[in-house]
Amino acid sequence: MSGRLFVVGLGPGDPQLLTGEADAALSTADALYGYGPYLDRIPPRPGQARHPSDNRKEPERAAAALRCVAEGAQVAVVSGGDPGVFAMAAAICAEIEAGPPAWRSLDITIIPGITAMLAVAARVGAPLGHDFCVLSLSDNLKPWPLIERRLDAAAGAGFVIALYNPVSRARPWQLGAAFERLRRHLPAATPVVFGRAVGRADENVTVTTLDAAGAEAADMATLVIVGSPETRIILRPGRESLVYTPRAMPEASA
Amino acid sequence: MSGRLFVVGLGPGDPQLLTGEADAALSTADALYGYGPYLDRIPPRPGQARHPSDNRKEPERAAAALRCVAEGAQVAVVSGGDPGVFAMAAAICAEIEAGPPAWRSLDITIIPGITAMLAVAARVGAPLGHDFCVLSLSDNLKPWPLIERRLDAAAGAGFVIALYNPVSRARPWQLGAAFERLRRHLPAATPVVFGRAVGRADENVTVTTLDAAGAEAADMATLVIVGSPETRIILRPGRESLVYTPRAMPEASA
Repeated sequence: MSGRLFVVGLGPGDPQLLTGEADAALSTADALYGYGPYLDRIPPRPGQARHPSDNRKEPERAAAALRCVAEGAQVAVVSGGDPGVFAMAAAICAEIEAGPPAWRSLDITIIPGITAMLAVAARVGAPLGHDFCVLSLSDNLKPWPLIERRLDAAAGAGFVIALYNPVSRARPWQLGAAFERLRRHLPAATPVVFGRAVGRADENVTVTTLDAAGAEAADMATLVIVGSPETRIILRPGRESLVYTPRAMPEASA
Repeated sequence: MSGRLFVVGLGPGDPQLLTGEADAALSTADALYGYGPYLDRIPPRPGQARHPSDNRKEPERAAAALRCVAEGAQVAVVSGGDPGVFAMAAAICAEIEAGPPAWRSLDITIIPGITAMLAVAARVGAPLGHDFCVLSLSDNLKPWPLIERRLDAAAGAGFVIALYNPVSRARPWQLGAAFERLRRHLPAATPVVFGRAVGRADENVTVTTLDAAGAEAADMATLVIVGSPETRIILRPGRESLVYTPRAMPEASA
């Protein structure tokens, strides 16, 4: 039997947000590879091996999965959200490029998933309804001055901004510094959304404004959306507010 | 019975890329509202009314659906892809904000979907594996000089760029002008992906470079991804090339 690799997006955590294609790939795999807490979301199946690994070990996990596929197995590597957004699909590609030539002949299928920003946006309205930028705040893999330059460019040009990896134990100050940077460009009343663990038991989504936004509202599982000057908050009596960015721009903004 | 509105993302078109949550909402609705070709993707159900409308009629469609919910119906408004990305969720919010106060009390649930850029990226590898911007090229709703300014900001700061609504019959020159603009900032060899109708019978995904990219390769159903200077193409004998943007930046790029 010839091997096959599925790189599967699990979505934000609620099994109802998994696609049919992802479910099918998970059910046919001989072996699953992934960050332990992501594997824990998948019901066990008899005869299916599981290889959990730490979330800092993505290159090693990708290489291990590719070796297993090269030996003829059907393998699924899982990512939370979408595997193509700051996740395993790029790690797999990097290992294929750097690895033995035979890995370039392997059968690879990437299965998209609901990435965190889409799930968080859906909870509050449509903050990503107009042009937006998506930025990882982790400076483990890129220098902080480049992140600052990108925040300046995005806010200066009127993009809404979705921030992945806002904080971690090893990166406690970056989100606060990003808010400070964005306050140079954006009005104090710019809406900010903190979305944590959407669709899971510990979900917590809050809406605030840029002047009031503090890094302590986020943890590793949080996705932050900072609006543009066009982003609006609709107050609703007895219901959560809606946050949205209109598709139509006033001509004066040009 | 009190009304309820679901704003449902259908994903790129393959029913296998629908989430369980979207499927459940579509099955319980009394009435469906949407652009005709999107409604055509949904199997008919006895007793479920369908209200197709033109794709330029989003505000009217949103208002009609909200009136129906206010009368007590369970209504689903559908979008291709994700409803929060250049789609119906923002139109619904805008009508709620402008409409009768009673609409603010309505029960609204937005159900995310696989948006086109995630589906296209998955087909070719991981072009969105690092920081990226998402931009509609339609100048129906915003002035063209603002689009140019955003292209400059995004390319100048090293973001990968996903372009929605690249061309239409009424907007034939915008994509060519965008490529011209991006050539000021980006190397000739920058990878460009054209992804059309992923998961549907007429799917067509091609990879080229910025110097060779032409607007004639795109139509209304195409999503275009323009890489950053870090985006790479991996040639694979006997298989389609992979395109990916590494998560790790060389220090020299700072």
